[in-house]
Amino acid sequence: MQHPDPRRLSINTATVRKQWTLDKIIDGCARHGICGISPWRDQVQALGLEKTARLIRSNALTVSGYCRGGMFPGVDDATRQVASDDNRRAVDEALALGAACLVLVVGGLPGSSKDIAGARQQVKDGLSRLLDYSRNVGMPLAIEPLHPMYAADRACVNTLEQANDLCDELGDKGLGIAVDLYHTWWDPKLFPQLERAGRNRILAFHICDWLVPTRDLLSDRGMMGDGVIDIRSARLAVESLGYQGAHEVEIFSELNWWQQEPNDVLSTCKERHQQYC
Amino acid sequence: MQHPDPRRLSINTATVRKQWTLDKIIDGCARHGICGISPWRDQVQALGLEKTARLIRSNALTVSGYCRGGMFPGVDDATRQVASDDNRRAVDEALALGAACLVLVVGGLPGSSKDIAGARQQVKDGLSRLLDYSRNVGMPLAIEPLHPMYAADRACVNTLEQANDLCDELGDKGLGIAVDLYHTWWDPKLFPQLERAGRNRILAFHICDWLVPTRDLLSDRGMMGDGVIDIRSARLAVESLGYQGAHEVEIFSELNWWQQEPNDVLSTCKERHQQYC
Repeated sequence: MQHPDPRRLSINTATVRKQWTLDKIIDGCARHGICGISPWRDQVQALGLEKTARLIRSNALTVSGYCRGGMFPGVDDATRQVASDDNRRAVDEALALGAACLVLVVGGLPGSSKDIAGARQQVKDGLSRLLDYSRNVGMPLAIEPLHPMYAADRACVNTLEQANDLCDELGDKGLGIAVDLYHTWWDPKLFPQLERAGRNRILAFHICDWLVPTRDLLSDRGMMGDGVIDIRSARLAVESLGYQGAHEVEIFSELNWWQQEPNDVLSTCKERHQQYC
Repeated sequence: MQHPDPRRLSINTATVRKQWTLDKIIDGCARHGICGISPWRDQVQALGLEKTARLIRSNALTVSGYCRGGMFPGVDDATRQVASDDNRRAVDEALALGAACLVLVVGGLPGSSKDIAGARQQVKDGLSRLLDYSRNVGMPLAIEPLHPMYAADRACVNTLEQANDLCDELGDKGLGIAVDLYHTWWDPKLFPQLERAGRNRILAFHICDWLVPTRDLLSDRGMMGDGVIDIRSARLAVESLGYQGAHEVEIFSELNWWQQEPNDVLSTCKERHQQYC
């Protein structure tokens, strides 16, 4: 058994967002000896960007990613322009926080559209425009393929193969992939596409577990070890490719973990990280 | 607009299973001038195989598929043998009903396994054994790729590409694919993999719609036109490849259609078939 380096553990702040505000989460990570954090924009806005950056620095936390940019497709040019402007601000915030990457949830079908190929083209176009900016300021963008059950309303990039194709088409500079096992564990091409991505493209590695049964499409993710994902095999695979970033725990769990005492949640993350990752 | 041939409409009996027993569904299809039906095994068992076959024949219905065989992975040889025996009986029943194919939901992870690659190998092995039987008696087997959200507990074949690969590996004779748009609409490779499958492999074509939001993983499918799937494009694609089989409506809908008067459900299927398929 090859246990993971405990210093690679990072907490995506969604994991305890119902119990704690961002300042408490930063403090909690520090108290529990967790070295990484990945905050969400709404929480950063609530706490203030400069204060967040200062607290993260003073607690010596690594920012494994910033959640999130994306949502490229829109019903018209004006809508897409709003998203574009907002994405540039997200890049700036990610820079201010010293994030390893800006995570992109690319968006689904705009309006009442049934044209998923068209939405995918809009993603490519929007991403290309954002790269003009992000490459210039030096913030890597990480395309996060989302589970196909979110194709309509959250992200129409649903496989690592698609994300790799986008990297091929748009160029690797400042562009890569956020690999979240919740979204990709089922994919028969998971391992070959991780290999295709390789060290340079894998910018983030998110973990949690797939519960059986899953009672809700959005917020019934499991703690590592409580579901069916072979997390360790995937972690060993990305590290054998040279990935040296964080193992970021991101658990949306209305029914369970969001109801727990947050210090217990963080302790459990640490234990399960060692046991199952 | 190229409207579909109304004679291609078929009702998967799951669509009204909460309201009607199988004899009533057969009668309902006949009364509504619907030419095809696809019954489930439990309903056939309840009504009796011979009586079902007689009623279907006397109402001149086409059996677009028989639901279902599969569930190949098991925790041990004994479990897999039980599934194997049961699958042979399903083949025999499909023959007795004159079904176009036996639809296979291949099964997910056995027991508490996290080895999805192993489960997929078990599917291939079990399918290979069943083909020894089904090819001999002349009943085509249709692999149905299920949506990735069912990978753990229902089917670890989740894309058309996987199903095509299985057909390549096991040989095309008596083997093909049931294309269900609910499971495959999101797939960036949907159209190329339909083309790869071609006329000979496409043995069934199932329709319904993906609702936004989807409130339940199992039983919140939509009526054609109520969701985001471009059903017509896919129907035109399979027919341009030479598919001449049914357009089978399969809607699991605890919250809506299973609560409706079943004659209204069948009327709506007919209307929406013309409008959206």
